[in-house]
Amino acid sequence: MNIKDVTASVNDEIDVFQKRYKEVLHARNTLVDKVTRYVLKQQGKQIRPAMVLLAAKLCGGVNESTYRAAIMVELLHSATLIHDDVVDGAEMRRGLPSINALWKNKISVLIGDFLLSKGLLYSLEHKDYGFLHQVSDAVRRMSEGEILQIQKTRSLDITEEDYLSVISDKTASLISSACAMGALSAVSDENRIKALKNYGEYLGLAFQIRDDLLDYTGDSKKTGKQMGIDIKDKKITLPLIYALRHSPEGEQKKIRSILKSSRKRAYKSGDVVDFVKSKGGLDYASEVAEGFASKAVAEIMPFPDGSAKTSLLHLVDFVMKRQY
Amino acid sequence: MNIKDVTASVNDEIDVFQKRYKEVLHARNTLVDKVTRYVLKQQGKQIRPAMVLLAAKLCGGVNESTYRAAIMVELLHSATLIHDDVVDGAEMRRGLPSINALWKNKISVLIGDFLLSKGLLYSLEHKDYGFLHQVSDAVRRMSEGEILQIQKTRSLDITEEDYLSVISDKTASLISSACAMGALSAVSDENRIKALKNYGEYLGLAFQIRDDLLDYTGDSKKTGKQMGIDIKDKKITLPLIYALRHSPEGEQKKIRSILKSSRKRAYKSGDVVDFVKSKGGLDYASEVAEGFASKAVAEIMPFPDGSAKTSLLHLVDFVMKRQY
Repeated sequence: MNIKDVTASVNDEIDVFQKRYKEVLHARNTLVDKVTRYVLKQQGKQIRPAMVLLAAKLCGGVNESTYRAAIMVELLHSATLIHDDVVDGAEMRRGLPSINALWKNKISVLIGDFLLSKGLLYSLEHKDYGFLHQVSDAVRRMSEGEILQIQKTRSLDITEEDYLSVISDKTASLISSACAMGALSAVSDENRIKALKNYGEYLGLAFQIRDDLLDYTGDSKKTGKQMGIDIKDKKITLPLIYALRHSPEGEQKKIRSILKSSRKRAYKSGDVVDFVKSKGGLDYASEVAEGFASKAVAEIMPFPDGSAKTSLLHLVDFVMKRQY
Repeated sequence: MNIKDVTASVNDEIDVFQKRYKEVLHARNTLVDKVTRYVLKQQGKQIRPAMVLLAAKLCGGVNESTYRAAIMVELLHSATLIHDDVVDGAEMRRGLPSINALWKNKISVLIGDFLLSKGLLYSLEHKDYGFLHQVSDAVRRMSEGEILQIQKTRSLDITEEDYLSVISDKTASLISSACAMGALSAVSDENRIKALKNYGEYLGLAFQIRDDLLDYTGDSKKTGKQMGIDIKDKKITLPLIYALRHSPEGEQKKIRSILKSSRKRAYKSGDVVDFVKSKGGLDYASEVAEGFASKAVAEIMPFPDGSAKTSLLHLVDFVMKRQY
């Protein structure tokens, strides 16, 4: 299954969104305009705007304000990706050089700020205060989540609880807001909005755990990521956290010293991967992801059947099965 | 005259503001909290919050929402300073190492985002939508202004019009919003809000031109800035723009080649300073600043006399006379 199939029930709406998104990104300043046009080229699968549209459809239907919510979410997502690439010193983004690689950190920081403020202004112009409430908290959580991650993984003592808190703030918060905003654009019923907010949160958690698993199991040709790179960057994720917790102290010490020594090297950390596998870290992380996926499904089940419901359920499947 | 004397009529209110600002900055995450406490240490003269308070006082009086406006403005100002220091690779900020010097660019970008979202959330929590409208546009303008500056000064062909557009976006926009927000917290009369918005804009323009002049005339011991550094960074400002425009082509060429060759060197560019002086660039920039200062005064004159009016008029004087 391909993501376009998953979101097929809103593909027409995605086209409308994309057209308007391009218009909103247009800037008078020629350099800003050049960079934002490049941002469009780098655009990914537009999962977040698709989720806004699907959530609205599930709750009654897509309307004008739904498109605004989708645009706002995509603007904030793009802004945070650009800042993330500065933070991580990333050279590539989706097969193309990153903004910071092409225009240096200076312009990247400023373009991120520009897109962030553009997203907020866009909703202010339309008095979409409900959307603003949903999304501002996500912006704060994304920055706090990144900082917590840097802080914790430096000290190599991150617990499962810390890890879940990091990925909830960093990844799940905006996905959760996207779903809530889609629902909010279509209904005022608090229960339905809450159900979609929860769905997004659980899906986001499952997605990030699966993404972190792919650092161990994925085919780097398909994922476009260098395998083991998160180990090298000491982004200690769930499989390793579990494996360390379930090892005698001596073994823990050995692994910690490998991690510390590989600080600057980009090799595959084969020893660490073998260690994590042998301790059942991969199986455990898969189970935790499955648990969140089931919770996401449970939030959607009470809604009436239809193409939007089918898509949102398929999306959970897609997240759980993807190999890249 | 010292800035504390200028703002004396709201010094009690500044103390209240400062206490609340500290509370708002508190963060659960220990690293974020540590960095934000350092941000407090680096705090400057709190000119912007003082202007919010003075504008409110001029329009009737400081109330609870005035303090919220002041906190919001200071949060956004701090956020942009932190990002600016990343953008400029600045090592120092107000006599202390910059955030990026102590915690690297990673944390600086994220703390900037955190403060930005905190400022927006704070006003959303209190449904201060009027403040949000005032300030969001300033956030966008600040990032656009910085980008335009980088773009134009690289090519050494910045015109007086471009320069004024850059400093209006980069510096005057937030000062202007601060004054408008103070007025808005106290009255709903559009004319008075507009007058204070204009006052802030003109004062901001005068301030930045004077600040740029200090790169030529200032005592680096007092300004804490290295003299001529903006020449080195090729931040072409009004005195040089004027001097270049009023020189024969041969002389222009010579100066341009000095500027290009001094790309990486931090020397005082004595030749450039002498050139600018001899062409009347310093006098011209002073006159332009005087013009904006007069306009700022004219906006305030119709208001009833009182301590707030006196302070706002003194502030114009202070900006025009400061030597550091």
